Amino acid sequence: MPRNALYAQSGGVTPVINASAWGVISAARRHPDKIGTLYVAQNGILGALTESLIDISTVAESQLAALRHTPGGAFGSCRHKLKHGSELKRLFELFAAYDIGYFFYNGGGDSADTCLKVAEYAQYQGVDLTAIHIPKTIDNDLPHTDTSPGFGSVAKYIATTTRECGLDLASMSSSSTKVFILEVMGRHTGWLAAASGLASRTPAEPPHLILLPEVPFDAQRFLRAVKQTVANVGYCVVVAAEGIRDAGGHRLSESAGTDAFGHTQLGGVAPLLANIIRAELSHKCHWAVADYMQRAARHLASANDLEQAIAVGEAAVDFAIHGQRSVMPAIVREADQPYRWHIAPVSLKDVANKEKPLPESYLRDDCMHLSITGRAYFAPLILGETPPPFDHGLPDYPVWHFPVMERKLPLFEIL
Amino acid sequence: MPRNALYAQSGGVTPVINASAWGVISAARRHPDKIGTLYVAQNGILGALTESLIDISTVAESQLAALRHTPGGAFGSCRHKLKHGSELKRLFELFAAYDIGYFFYNGGGDSADTCLKVAEYAQYQGVDLTAIHIPKTIDNDLPHTDTSPGFGSVAKYIATTTRECGLDLASMSSSSTKVFILEVMGRHTGWLAAASGLASRTPAEPPHLILLPEVPFDAQRFLRAVKQTVANVGYCVVVAAEGIRDAGGHRLSESAGTDAFGHTQLGGVAPLLANIIRAELSHKCHWAVADYMQRAARHLASANDLEQAIAVGEAAVDFAIHGQRSVMPAIVREADQPYRWHIAPVSLKDVANKEKPLPESYLRDDCMHLSITGRAYFAPLILGETPPPFDHGLPDYPVWHFPVMERKLPLFEIL
Repeated sequence: MPRNALYAQSGGVTPVINASAWGVISAARRHPDKIGTLYVAQNGILGALTESLIDISTVAESQLAALRHTPGGAFGSCRHKLKHGSELKRLFELFAAYDIGYFFYNGGGDSADTCLKVAEYAQYQGVDLTAIHIPKTIDNDLPHTDTSPGFGSVAKYIATTTRECGLDLASMSSSSTKVFILEVMGRHTGWLAAASGLASRTPAEPPHLILLPEVPFDAQRFLRAVKQTVANVGYCVVVAAEGIRDAGGHRLSESAGTDAFGHTQLGGVAPLLANIIRAELSHKCHWAVADYMQRAARHLASANDLEQAIAVGEAAVDFAIHGQRSVMPAIVREADQPYRWHIAPVSLKDVANKEKPLPESYLRDDCMHLSITGRAYFAPLILGETPPPFDHGLPDYPVWHFPVMERKLPLFEIL
Repeated sequence: MPRNALYAQSGGVTPVINASAWGVISAARRHPDKIGTLYVAQNGILGALTESLIDISTVAESQLAALRHTPGGAFGSCRHKLKHGSELKRLFELFAAYDIGYFFYNGGGDSADTCLKVAEYAQYQGVDLTAIHIPKTIDNDLPHTDTSPGFGSVAKYIATTTRECGLDLASMSSSSTKVFILEVMGRHTGWLAAASGLASRTPAEPPHLILLPEVPFDAQRFLRAVKQTVANVGYCVVVAAEGIRDAGGHRLSESAGTDAFGHTQLGGVAPLLANIIRAELSHKCHWAVADYMQRAARHLASANDLEQAIAVGEAAVDFAIHGQRSVMPAIVREADQPYRWHIAPVSLKDVANKEKPLPESYLRDDCMHLSITGRAYFAPLILGETPPPFDHGLPDYPVWHFPVMERKLPLFEIL
């Protein structure tokens, strides 16, 4: 007898997380003998708790097809740490009510933890449930996988915009702006900032300096490097991760002052760095903060990343129906060039709540440039273009219409 | 006897200003009977003053071909107000030394003024010189032309990223971030911010609020609109021009406080708006400042914009060799849909130092949304995709190699 399946999206979204959903949907369809109805919970685990469910068979085929090319989390995401006790109990009441035999949770490290909790609770309660975690994070900090779907596309976007902004700065530098600072995501790790180094083919090409959370920020050393770069190249492009810290481990973005309204100025290391440079070196600076722009830029996704995003979704279903439990489909690199990889299961216990740091060997000795080793790692992840269809000059992303099912369980309040 | 020509790029650059250079180069080649050598001055008028010249016939063909798809100003740009007296005198010494009969200056309003000064000085001195201004500005504020090359591409980029970031925000909004603010360029006019309205096909789609320099910022009115949008839609995407002002005409970005280092926090209306929203509405906010990212994003250029950028370069040459003087090739719209246009000369006197404001009719009555009239104007400008070639996963923009000629005039110092 086929069992039903539940899929949900969790944590910060990516340009290709919906492609993983598509992978799950298309693989589930190939196995009607094993998987009956595929349900999707809205807003991650929250939708499972509140019984906000979509039966995928009721969704228009054109909407499902658009999952492959649309950024964001189509079904809604959440940041919610599942609580033991009432929440786990409720979740299993829902599983029972809908005969859920397979639970697919698509997210990062925290979501792997949620998935593991669900798996362990099932085992403890003697419930027949297969919980599989589908990797996703632009931070690239999930362990035991070559990369996490989402990362390669954002890396491609950041390296592209670094190269583009560098050309703009170069044009203006002889008589005007000398420094450009691009702030990218990365609160704990510098994977994305480091990947910007791919834009540089020659020493004179941007990025000229990369600042990472792993390397304590030293203002004097930074200013010397900027000054030297402007002297040598004529201008300087800095890529800074949002999470850079000083030697005391204090985040720079949290040290900002107050604005004219008396509110604490939160976030933005780029304007802070620009102010230091203006004050100390008297250079005209421009700065940008990419924020969601980078994470949502499906228009510039990496084809390799998209392929892997679909593949982990499909593999999750394959693993599940072949009896794998409490695993994550991980990407295993076989070769750098040409890039070859396959998917293998890793235990959720080895993934949950663990953070993969950027290897020191990916940086040169000065810790401000990508090393040859780092380049070899990042290079294949950004390969290939796979633009969405365009309509009226803009990416043709749909307005989502997902019919939400009527509830059959009592209301549940999330505290 | 053919005369020689001088081309230069000026002011803030665009994703397609190099395509205009290509237009000049290819048109000049078609008329060897009229135009002998085409020189390019590096860094705009500064390179003409300092005799930093490139003979285009010495540049590799592959480099010239790449002009069509590479952002920034390949030959360098400048912000320099040409001084009467010694500078104009020196410029004409250079014209004489190189037998320059045609001067093509590619820029915005300030550059049109420079071009006009040159034309008037030539007439006054009885020098046989044709000065033509080639329009370019992402600000779209040049008068007497339907649009300025560069604007359509940046508008396409901003509308795209608005739609993309909106999908990201929508995913997170049920339990986390409720407001996203995208800061775009526009110190004096709101053309770019207004164009973001193209991303919205339905009232619920982003952008939900557009803030422009032309409309005095009223914090209470803004907060009410944000609150209402979050209540209706679940989240709110704001697109704000960098130059928004309060009722007293004071720029918000200049009212910021000081950072932890004691430096004045310059620029960034997005973080400022985010702080107001956090403090007054307690919503979690994300914000991005696009800065150079938008202006350099050749990877997402508008095909119509690219075509016009090339066309104005070609038309400048055609006008010049047909005896037009002191004009700018302007784009004349014939029809909105399908978009039809032609190029006609307008007098430099009608263009120089004039700023075209955003028509009130392009906004709805609340001044925070694009009107139907505005949509009809903007829609064709972003049409068509024309991505650059990619190599190793990134846009294949060249490293420029332009052989600079040996000087033959005495050194000239710019004061």
